[in-house]
Amino acid sequence: MTTNEKALALHEEWKGKLATQSKCKLHTREDLSLTYTPGVAEPCKVIANDKEAAYTYTIKSNTIAVVSDGSAVLGLGNIGPYAAMPVMEGKAVLFKEFGNVNAFPICLDTQDTEEIIQTVVNIAPAFGGINLEDISAPRCFEIEERLNELLDIPVFHDDQHGTAIVVLAGIINALKVVNKKKEDCQVVVNGAGSAGIAITKLLMTYGFSHIVVCDINGVLPQKADHLNDMQKYIADHTNPKHITGTLADALKDADIFIGVSAPNIVTSEMVASMNKDAILFAMANPVPEIMPDAAKAAGARVVGTGRSDFPNQVNNVVAFPGIFKGALEGRASRITEEMKLAAACAIAGLVSPEELNEDFILPEAFNPNVAQVVSQAVKEHIHE
Amino acid sequence: MTTNEKALALHEEWKGKLATQSKCKLHTREDLSLTYTPGVAEPCKVIANDKEAAYTYTIKSNTIAVVSDGSAVLGLGNIGPYAAMPVMEGKAVLFKEFGNVNAFPICLDTQDTEEIIQTVVNIAPAFGGINLEDISAPRCFEIEERLNELLDIPVFHDDQHGTAIVVLAGIINALKVVNKKKEDCQVVVNGAGSAGIAITKLLMTYGFSHIVVCDINGVLPQKADHLNDMQKYIADHTNPKHITGTLADALKDADIFIGVSAPNIVTSEMVASMNKDAILFAMANPVPEIMPDAAKAAGARVVGTGRSDFPNQVNNVVAFPGIFKGALEGRASRITEEMKLAAACAIAGLVSPEELNEDFILPEAFNPNVAQVVSQAVKEHIHE
Repeated sequence: MTTNEKALALHEEWKGKLATQSKCKLHTREDLSLTYTPGVAEPCKVIANDKEAAYTYTIKSNTIAVVSDGSAVLGLGNIGPYAAMPVMEGKAVLFKEFGNVNAFPICLDTQDTEEIIQTVVNIAPAFGGINLEDISAPRCFEIEERLNELLDIPVFHDDQHGTAIVVLAGIINALKVVNKKKEDCQVVVNGAGSAGIAITKLLMTYGFSHIVVCDINGVLPQKADHLNDMQKYIADHTNPKHITGTLADALKDADIFIGVSAPNIVTSEMVASMNKDAILFAMANPVPEIMPDAAKAAGARVVGTGRSDFPNQVNNVVAFPGIFKGALEGRASRITEEMKLAAACAIAGLVSPEELNEDFILPEAFNPNVAQVVSQAVKEHIHE
Repeated sequence: MTTNEKALALHEEWKGKLATQSKCKLHTREDLSLTYTPGVAEPCKVIANDKEAAYTYTIKSNTIAVVSDGSAVLGLGNIGPYAAMPVMEGKAVLFKEFGNVNAFPICLDTQDTEEIIQTVVNIAPAFGGINLEDISAPRCFEIEERLNELLDIPVFHDDQHGTAIVVLAGIINALKVVNKKKEDCQVVVNGAGSAGIAITKLLMTYGFSHIVVCDINGVLPQKADHLNDMQKYIADHTNPKHITGTLADALKDADIFIGVSAPNIVTSEMVASMNKDAILFAMANPVPEIMPDAAKAAGARVVGTGRSDFPNQVNNVVAFPGIFKGALEGRASRITEEMKLAAACAIAGLVSPEELNEDFILPEAFNPNVAQVVSQAVKEHIHE
């Protein structure tokens, strides 16, 4: 059986990867009267007088929603809310297993921005946080921003910020390997969708100043009608040297390539035109922008991909469970840029100086310390 | 510690009565690639081509939403969605413990009928059924009816139909105790809210023809502007003898009293005016319409209440877990009158002729056969 066949067979066996579980024992009439009526009226009354008490008496303190409209699922595209379910259940399972955060999949039967926002606002009382997932750009930007304004719980689009955090963590460690400073590095981000935009913003926040963002047409022009608002913002705030042209033009003398784009679009020649000790994160999935061996042969020093069968997998699972764990434990109302930076630094710090090398820049997904360390870092930066 | 104090302390200890649980093991990279990417894409693709496959590969086959807007919670009234959470979590726990149905609480931060309908429609993909709970009348009627039209999964308002089913089960057995036939019985239902209406409708479906419904103003008049549409329908289709007046007037020569109304509004004199071997279900909570000992002293033969500290507790928990278990297992798209009748008969049948007596007309909540027997009865009537 191939992995795909095995996965399908397992999903049929599971009939859903998630179950609910009662924390209460229910063996006697008294149990029933404590868990349900009449005893349950007591916490209800307390919360009716003080909404904050929901964090003391209900699942809100440790439960999030994994919300998707199925419009941009994995590499499969707009497959809708029903077909998105296995992914959202999987995500919910990862939240539980890696972060001990209860997560429930909410797959929305609408792709209208206003309806999505209203629906999430309406169901928010049960949840301590909202993880947005696989919602297509540019709607994902507005949905996240508006929900963060409307709700007093953190709203986090993992495809954007989870990816950005892990990329930054990897870059932090890759720079140590090649012994370069962020101030001296020219960065090229290829892909101006939700992940590319978020990566660019977080790299800017971290202190990279020479970033050039490309899309399928080459370097983002500074004034172009076809760009969405977020792309326009990025075009206006990057590329200080006003580089123009193609991806190949942008890569000349660059130090870092970050691809969230398409298979096989980076050639060996392009890599060879980059600065010495180039760093490439070629994260198109399952086929990267350039295969690691080809990139290395052309002179790259550190290469990461989205795949688990090559070194340096850039995998969000080292970020999102700990981020929500920390945000929930610290009762954050937002996940701020400071919290994201802290998470990236914490993830990078999980690779010890002894372990660090060009083929090991990020902690393993199964490193049992990851979520705890990330959540601690996030918690410490909640009030900044 | 009183029960209330103990309940509050337990709720603080639990910090939410419900948790999520992964059904998948996640110990290795391979586990991760089967549960999540890349393997998860396989069931996604199958569902994208055939929405029905969601029942094979996702939680939809055995998961329901417990939906409330917090507008009519227990006897506490309109306490809102946050304060409603402990009840909805409790309900979800009971679904799991008694029916092995995964249930998740959805407490809505809106009490607007249209918004509630739209929100539930939007979140429906993950769920195989919708249990509406503690939504005030008359909105609950429209919400349930419209959702049943819009969705292809069963929508069931437990305060209405769960109550009606258990009342009917109790009445079926009480009639055996007193050796009367439904055709000969005059029934008075006191309370024209959601439960009273639903009880009346199910008793009519079962074959009671002499039913008089009262509200706080006495017998429902046949043409009155202050009645909602459902009450008007009930007023037009009951009371064939055109009885008018007060509850006391209605109770004269009646055989059965069903109260879903207010404490202490039935007097001993009223009970004494009923027919011999009267049956009273005095379900106002926590203080019934008349206390069982007073009712018995005045001549009643069978008395039920909503309380667990008296015989014959009318408790929905013997109905709702099995009803959804059966509806999910049988892939019902609706919960029909036939399924409700079948459930009521199955519940009544769980009390054997040897056990049956005036103080034991309904099975215990903890009877381990209840959900299985009810679900089987429901399943057998899905295609009628």
